[in-house]
Amino acid sequence: MPVIQAVRWAPAGDAVRIVDQTCLPAHYVERDLRSLDDVCEAIATLRVRGAPAIGIAGAMGLVASLARHSTLGAAELAALARASAERIAAVRPTAVNLPWAMRRMLRRLDAVRGADAAALLDELRAEATAILDEDRVMCRRIGELGAELLADGARVLTHCNAGALATGGIGTALAPVYVAAERGMAVEVFADETRPLLQGSRLTAWELQRAGIPVTVLTDGMAASLMAAGRVDVVLVGADRIAANGDVANKVGTSMLAIAARHHGVPFYVAAPSSTLDAATPTGATIRIEQRGADEVTALHGVRTAPHGVAVYNPAFDVTPAGLVTGIVTDRGVFRAPFDFSHHRSGDDAPPRPSR
Amino acid sequence: MPVIQAVRWAPAGDAVRIVDQTCLPAHYVERDLRSLDDVCEAIATLRVRGAPAIGIAGAMGLVASLARHSTLGAAELAALARASAERIAAVRPTAVNLPWAMRRMLRRLDAVRGADAAALLDELRAEATAILDEDRVMCRRIGELGAELLADGARVLTHCNAGALATGGIGTALAPVYVAAERGMAVEVFADETRPLLQGSRLTAWELQRAGIPVTVLTDGMAASLMAAGRVDVVLVGADRIAANGDVANKVGTSMLAIAARHHGVPFYVAAPSSTLDAATPTGATIRIEQRGADEVTALHGVRTAPHGVAVYNPAFDVTPAGLVTGIVTDRGVFRAPFDFSHHRSGDDAPPRPSR
Repeated sequence: MPVIQAVRWAPAGDAVRIVDQTCLPAHYVERDLRSLDDVCEAIATLRVRGAPAIGIAGAMGLVASLARHSTLGAAELAALARASAERIAAVRPTAVNLPWAMRRMLRRLDAVRGADAAALLDELRAEATAILDEDRVMCRRIGELGAELLADGARVLTHCNAGALATGGIGTALAPVYVAAERGMAVEVFADETRPLLQGSRLTAWELQRAGIPVTVLTDGMAASLMAAGRVDVVLVGADRIAANGDVANKVGTSMLAIAARHHGVPFYVAAPSSTLDAATPTGATIRIEQRGADEVTALHGVRTAPHGVAVYNPAFDVTPAGLVTGIVTDRGVFRAPFDFSHHRSGDDAPPRPSR
Repeated sequence: MPVIQAVRWAPAGDAVRIVDQTCLPAHYVERDLRSLDDVCEAIATLRVRGAPAIGIAGAMGLVASLARHSTLGAAELAALARASAERIAAVRPTAVNLPWAMRRMLRRLDAVRGADAAALLDELRAEATAILDEDRVMCRRIGELGAELLADGARVLTHCNAGALATGGIGTALAPVYVAAERGMAVEVFADETRPLLQGSRLTAWELQRAGIPVTVLTDGMAASLMAAGRVDVVLVGADRIAANGDVANKVGTSMLAIAARHHGVPFYVAAPSSTLDAATPTGATIRIEQRGADEVTALHGVRTAPHGVAVYNPAFDVTPAGLVTGIVTDRGVFRAPFDFSHHRSGDDAPPRPSR
């Protein structure tokens, strides 16, 4: 089966069609977002998640919601677009891709002053489609470069979900796996379940299983045992931000995996858009790590797994020192140690650093 | 509040009083086991768990169940004791402490041939109480020796539950923490939640919180992040079996923790009864690791957390190489690398290697 497409236009072009990730892995539900309320609700409740995916869904959702108001004149439509973009950007304020996508849509709007309402809507639709397509190209390029690192029969260990469900395309960390499979190579994935939110067992396992790629779930603490058994050829993970010296901020648990990989002599690769390279952050030490709520750790589906009132340590991310990273696979090439991204520049249209 | 006592005589001496661990952490329920059915059911359903604790509960439960039959003669009582012991030993056949405790009870029975029924029951009660008391002494001794390794204000990271709930006394890995607290030292514990069965968040956090010791729960993948933040002074874990060369089999996740501790320069101690030292096992490579069912990883409280039919890697234990172990704290002393337990001998009455 082809790789799942997490965000796309509905066939009639009047809605954004998403895979509702809150229903996974139990149920596969596609949802068409038509109104502004639909779009904001889907992003707020994580029906669509992953930094690239929410930027795309926001941009396409803005277009779908505006298209319902065909009686508006150009000025009214532009005003509505601005108000709607502001509301969408605010749904998950810490996710940088969302305000970035909205700014990009409004820049396009500014560039076509004087057009009538229909032309204006066409321009916005083209911009949203461009954001989607560029993300797809970025994923594909990472996949092609990353696949070169995998031998036939490769056994890949990954963490969290940096797959198709998090992007408009075939993912970042999982892209090399999908490309290798397309090329007819044997490839197998071990997916850390990734506590506390279980993106690995809920999402990574689901999308790989659906694509027909052999996948095995393990708890996060079992990775070293699997490596000791000689069953991992390479670790491939995504990144939320990569400092100029190559330190990698990613989902918590990544650094522990990198340490175990080094101990067991397993190569450790990071796959991420070049927009994740942050020349302005000299090292990982200056990256602020978000602490999240205790309930994520102490309860699951409303059932308590720890005593009431217990203290919880729940950082969303950790920093893997550059010294533990074998290579960084981006859409602009594969970088190897020693890393130096201090002169890296992203274009204005390049998506920002992702955050989940 | 004093340390929880997981297994003890009910005040009237006619029952084994246990803390029902299936109700934790949501509810604190004490349960008095009187009949043979009560005892077998409580062990089978993990109301009482932890190798030392189930051996003790089995021995005491045998006595309680026999005491209900005061009209029996000595021969009938002895026959009933044999049949009951056989049934109790079979409840969890892989748990070596249970058959060990039953064998010890029956040896005592053999040694008092000719006594009347009342005297015979007194002997069995004394033997069961001895098994409990010896375990309490073992825990206490580990606690005293281990507390010497902790500085005032020590921040201890632990994995799984090797605490009071798993023993008749104050636990093994947690014993040094309890003794340090008794001595008026400041001590704080970080408890890995310990997927898949969450013994850390459900049990370790609960018993420490109840004893008034500051405890913070984290997911297993967060331990390296905590160490990187400089918040862990020492790792203290239990053991299921320790090979002659010092390799340690313990709950899966332990080896990953040991690797992270070494990377971050944090001392890694194992605390276990001297009966855990296994001279007959030269290295960890020969220890067979039990693989457990997929459902432990893919569902929690009946809610699926991974897609149906996905493959699962779920070893119960892993092996931490001796080279990563700073020291091994036992009731017979603290051992340091290089380890050599090839001449270690346990007495016949010593409890066997624990298994969970």
